[in-house]
Amino acid sequence: MGGDTGPSVTVPASLSALRRYGYLSLVLVGDSSLIEPYLTNLSSDERDRIQIVHTSDVVSNQSRPDSILRSGRQSSMFKAVELVQTGDVQACVSAGNTGALLMAGRHLLKNIPGIEKPAIMAVVPASSSSSNTFLLDVGANTWCSASQLFQFALMGSVLVTAMSGREKPRVALLNIGEEEYKGRPEIREAAALLAASNAMEYLGFVEGNQLFDGRSDVIVCDGFTGNVVIKVIAGSVRVTQNLVQQSLRKRWYYRFFAWWLQPLMRDVRRTLKPSRYNGAMLLGLQGIVVKSHGNADRSGFERAIEYALRQVQDDVPGVIASRMAALTGLAEEAKPV
Amino acid sequence: MGGDTGPSVTVPASLSALRRYGYLSLVLVGDSSLIEPYLTNLSSDERDRIQIVHTSDVVSNQSRPDSILRSGRQSSMFKAVELVQTGDVQACVSAGNTGALLMAGRHLLKNIPGIEKPAIMAVVPASSSSSNTFLLDVGANTWCSASQLFQFALMGSVLVTAMSGREKPRVALLNIGEEEYKGRPEIREAAALLAASNAMEYLGFVEGNQLFDGRSDVIVCDGFTGNVVIKVIAGSVRVTQNLVQQSLRKRWYYRFFAWWLQPLMRDVRRTLKPSRYNGAMLLGLQGIVVKSHGNADRSGFERAIEYALRQVQDDVPGVIASRMAALTGLAEEAKPV
Repeated sequence: MGGDTGPSVTVPASLSALRRYGYLSLVLVGDSSLIEPYLTNLSSDERDRIQIVHTSDVVSNQSRPDSILRSGRQSSMFKAVELVQTGDVQACVSAGNTGALLMAGRHLLKNIPGIEKPAIMAVVPASSSSSNTFLLDVGANTWCSASQLFQFALMGSVLVTAMSGREKPRVALLNIGEEEYKGRPEIREAAALLAASNAMEYLGFVEGNQLFDGRSDVIVCDGFTGNVVIKVIAGSVRVTQNLVQQSLRKRWYYRFFAWWLQPLMRDVRRTLKPSRYNGAMLLGLQGIVVKSHGNADRSGFERAIEYALRQVQDDVPGVIASRMAALTGLAEEAKPV
Repeated sequence: MGGDTGPSVTVPASLSALRRYGYLSLVLVGDSSLIEPYLTNLSSDERDRIQIVHTSDVVSNQSRPDSILRSGRQSSMFKAVELVQTGDVQACVSAGNTGALLMAGRHLLKNIPGIEKPAIMAVVPASSSSSNTFLLDVGANTWCSASQLFQFALMGSVLVTAMSGREKPRVALLNIGEEEYKGRPEIREAAALLAASNAMEYLGFVEGNQLFDGRSDVIVCDGFTGNVVIKVIAGSVRVTQNLVQQSLRKRWYYRFFAWWLQPLMRDVRRTLKPSRYNGAMLLGLQGIVVKSHGNADRSGFERAIEYALRQVQDDVPGVIASRMAALTGLAEEAKPV
């Protein structure tokens, strides 16, 4: 039910994913009278792999995140996360209110032991198309300690291994200078923790202009900075695109080229379009939750479903849990008796 | 002597500013043997308005900021700021090490009474060309309290009045949501301080994608966030431009258009080119210091000189000081006796 357009995007996107992945089954949680109209022309196999859990209650984008626990327990979002908790489904995808989704996730699924705070991880838009760069946290925590930043790096690298197969993901910390004395103390401390870890290839500090160079698989920062960063990228990409289009309109002879230039604009739009990067992962919970952007189009929402699928296949929460257990075990062994 | 290219950019830029502004006199601080070769073809009037203060010592970009106080007191940067302190010049412009410049500024010029910390203010690149949006702090303070953020807003608005003549600048706080319960506590507190002030038009919270819409004159954030933001913008603008250029190379028939498309690429480059936005202001000191980007070209460095000139004409530090005095006076009057 979530997102700017609700079932008109989410249901067709679900059907498209269903057709693409023959082993996928979907539970659509929401108002069945609004969902059913989109379930036409299905084969019997497809219809068998779709189930509707009806509820007419929704969490709006405007409501405060904690309202989902106070008055939203009948909402489609809460019920969808509940299905993960009960084990009826293996992952939940939502285009709704991010804060409420995080609140429901933390309440119902609980944190993985050893993970202090869950984080939200997103693909850096406009990062090199050959290899995606993931950024976390992009909004769950406004302030993060060194150990939390370290845990984010670990969770992010488990996810990158699931997505790309890379065994030792390359991890960097977002900072305001490359020199080791620069930035905030918690970032410098996290750097020391990462440098001592074998699970990842720690690259050091990166600055804001290095997000796009494709050298890092995971870039770690607090949720305030990360949230500002992804919005600034979206804004500046739009500004640049508008500028190109304005320039194209400014000279009369460009109108003659208009037809020829279409592929150029299409290239640019395709590479930069938000749906290519859609799907933010809530990491650190004992269950898989993916957040689609509220204004994602059909292919964007389908991408978010695929992100959930990859995490199920690799059991990302399970791998994070065992990594954390190993780390904690090591730490306990290392303690003086 | 500062910047990636030293006197080969800064001296010609200085001469160009000297020709443009007949009332301008310049003191060039640095190695006279490296400066003199660029002082050719000057009229006697121009030569009269240029003076060289020789020193062969420089602060490198790689050195730690505090080294300027320990071993850099003979450096061109320290000496240039010293000239502001002694009143020999009215403003200092440098393309050198930002941290060292800030350190020298704080040490020699001292803070304006009531200003807890100086801040660095920059133009948001790619902001609407009709009206510039200024962002501060972009790197002086990694963490800022509510009262510091308020002071940044006040300083920024004084500067905007000097630059654009707008009496009541429109001020916003950078946050991760527009709702008043969102973000960090110090930002919410600063919002309350700003809402109670008459000196500015307080717009509320803005998010990262709203930096470019031209609705704010001043956007305030801590120096960590601000530094990341300007670097992310620079990076994403470059990525988008590269993408357009790659697309242009990808189709053979674009080669036939190449000549016709030149104005398009020139438009885009001109609007987005860093030199249009060059010149970061160190605000809050009892003196005027402008920091040019290290890789600024000639017109960029000239722009930084113009920024200094505007601040001299409007006596920006003096206006900030009297505003702060008025505020402190009011606060004292309001105190219960």
